[in-house]
Amino acid sequence: MTSSRPFNFSAGPATLPEPVLHRVASEMLDWHGSGMSVMEMSHRGKEFGAILDGALADLRELLAVPANFRILFMQGGGLGENAIVPLNLSRGGKVDVVVTGSWSRKSASEARRYADVHIAAEGSGLDIPRAWQLRDDAAYVHVCTNETIDGVEFHDLPRVDNGVPLVIDCSSHLLSRPIDWSRVGLAFGGAQKNIGPAGVTLVFVREDQLGHALDICPTAFNYKTVADNNSMYNTPPTFGIYVAGLVFQWVKQLEYAGKRGLAAIEQRNIDKAGLLYAALDASGFYENRVDPTCRSRMNVPFFLKDEKLNESFLAEAKAAGLLQLKGHKSVGGMRASLYNALPLEGVQALVSFMKDFEARHG
Amino acid sequence: MTSSRPFNFSAGPATLPEPVLHRVASEMLDWHGSGMSVMEMSHRGKEFGAILDGALADLRELLAVPANFRILFMQGGGLGENAIVPLNLSRGGKVDVVVTGSWSRKSASEARRYADVHIAAEGSGLDIPRAWQLRDDAAYVHVCTNETIDGVEFHDLPRVDNGVPLVIDCSSHLLSRPIDWSRVGLAFGGAQKNIGPAGVTLVFVREDQLGHALDICPTAFNYKTVADNNSMYNTPPTFGIYVAGLVFQWVKQLEYAGKRGLAAIEQRNIDKAGLLYAALDASGFYENRVDPTCRSRMNVPFFLKDEKLNESFLAEAKAAGLLQLKGHKSVGGMRASLYNALPLEGVQALVSFMKDFEARHG
Repeated sequence: MTSSRPFNFSAGPATLPEPVLHRVASEMLDWHGSGMSVMEMSHRGKEFGAILDGALADLRELLAVPANFRILFMQGGGLGENAIVPLNLSRGGKVDVVVTGSWSRKSASEARRYADVHIAAEGSGLDIPRAWQLRDDAAYVHVCTNETIDGVEFHDLPRVDNGVPLVIDCSSHLLSRPIDWSRVGLAFGGAQKNIGPAGVTLVFVREDQLGHALDICPTAFNYKTVADNNSMYNTPPTFGIYVAGLVFQWVKQLEYAGKRGLAAIEQRNIDKAGLLYAALDASGFYENRVDPTCRSRMNVPFFLKDEKLNESFLAEAKAAGLLQLKGHKSVGGMRASLYNALPLEGVQALVSFMKDFEARHG
Repeated sequence: MTSSRPFNFSAGPATLPEPVLHRVASEMLDWHGSGMSVMEMSHRGKEFGAILDGALADLRELLAVPANFRILFMQGGGLGENAIVPLNLSRGGKVDVVVTGSWSRKSASEARRYADVHIAAEGSGLDIPRAWQLRDDAAYVHVCTNETIDGVEFHDLPRVDNGVPLVIDCSSHLLSRPIDWSRVGLAFGGAQKNIGPAGVTLVFVREDQLGHALDICPTAFNYKTVADNNSMYNTPPTFGIYVAGLVFQWVKQLEYAGKRGLAAIEQRNIDKAGLLYAALDASGFYENRVDPTCRSRMNVPFFLKDEKLNESFLAEAKAAGLLQLKGHKSVGGMRASLYNALPLEGVQALVSFMKDFEARHG
């Protein structure tokens, strides 16, 4: 299927696979002969039960999630989890946070409502700090493995030598690459980057981390309650889970460079990011300022050296079918998010446009 | 537009207006020439901004929401709000709850995490208790104005004479009738009954109730933070808000019995419920046990006097295109939910089927 749609570089909610959107449209009035839209189904019925079970099984397979992890579909997004994680895991004790950018800073701030928070290390926003001062009696260590705003990514999960569980906020690169579960106690992410519509939050929790919630934790956000009820203690965001399930199927069958599934997606993401960073580094007109060892494959902030051209760049990009390239207000400049559903052709079109723009304005 | 779809009596997630589903399907790959699905739009962009503003304005107009109330789109559903309300309003003090069924009982239980909860009155599950023992120093009085499981509805909002704010959980009849805002301090409801897909929670909060959250309230669920950021402190459930906005437009233009908009919807709901209750009361084969003065227009639990016929009833109803009539497991029997989007013809078809079933099995 070829597309005539523009390429969408939004940081999230973000572009989705076009075949998934076609499928969602075609099933809108009648899912599989049920006579109902997925939006109209009881979450307790067998139809939605099949959708939920399928999505869970496909996600577990794609990310090779071990049997001792539970996968939860929740609500409230990453900012909600910033409170929900310490409510469930901190035991009111100590939490260590590695600050690498805007998101981990927000996580630290919110955790202070519930725990004794220690900043184990703090980066510049353009790098990952290597020396961490961890406390052996912390309940967990929090890391944001891809900073959406700053464009900083962990390419290897850190090994926490003191045995304290690692909590990773992986919202903006979840499902873009494998996860080394041997190093993780809990992982969470909003769906609205690589997975589906906003309003679904994914939580992967190792079973030994269940059952330690503070009394003040709302029942609807208690991981053990949610796990015991297979994400149906309250009515889950059913339609978002359905779309996510279709995205999981799309990833499973994706082929690229002789690979299939998550390996294909990862290789394509490596190639997409490589293409854009190479173009940025070869240019004296544009620049990305992040340490090359931790540049994000997903979110590429960049600047025009002459910032007076920013508005022209955005307007001409939009006219060329390249959407949502404006940088986050706290950073400025541009940002190209290259999530799973953005095809390689999208980055090729962006790079081509950038060269053309430079030729005309450089 | 005539439909060939079955009639769907689900208690929620529930049937949606067919024209809305057609519209959603048609806009799935390209919303208004933007080149994006609504699922793919940044919540900070002008496209989604227009969707959000339109939905808020239409909802405010439909329900005549006064200027001193803020309308919030949140996440977590009614069960989430059972914690979020006392986290925001209780000040750690006293909360009075009127128990009329399953939902208000759950609300009371959850509020005990944060406040001194007093059961001001308790009904039988088939009625509304009239004598309430209220405390003058309570932070608020909680009432569930339509009990989805029990089928009990307040047809007039109570007047709380001691000046304590009334909090109403109106999830399952929100937008089915007007609300007397002069009696309300806060109203909340999940969208998945009359408004849209699961995963959107609506909160209407009087401005004097903002700014009193406990320190342990998660920032993402602090009403003042959400209000100050026009429901965009965190990424809102954008697609659900879009569908809700289309439903609001559908209600605004609905005509019935010489009326238009919410008045038309209410009249149609009165007629639908009247038709079904009349059929139940005229029969010795079926029964509804709720006090006739507080029978719900939205959720009609009923029983076959010979419960051995339950499975046959459900199977034959499904074959006749009448879906999701099974009662809640805690009550048993049947339940027909007659939400806004269910047309009068749906109730006519149900009553006709019931008479036929009785003739064959009675």
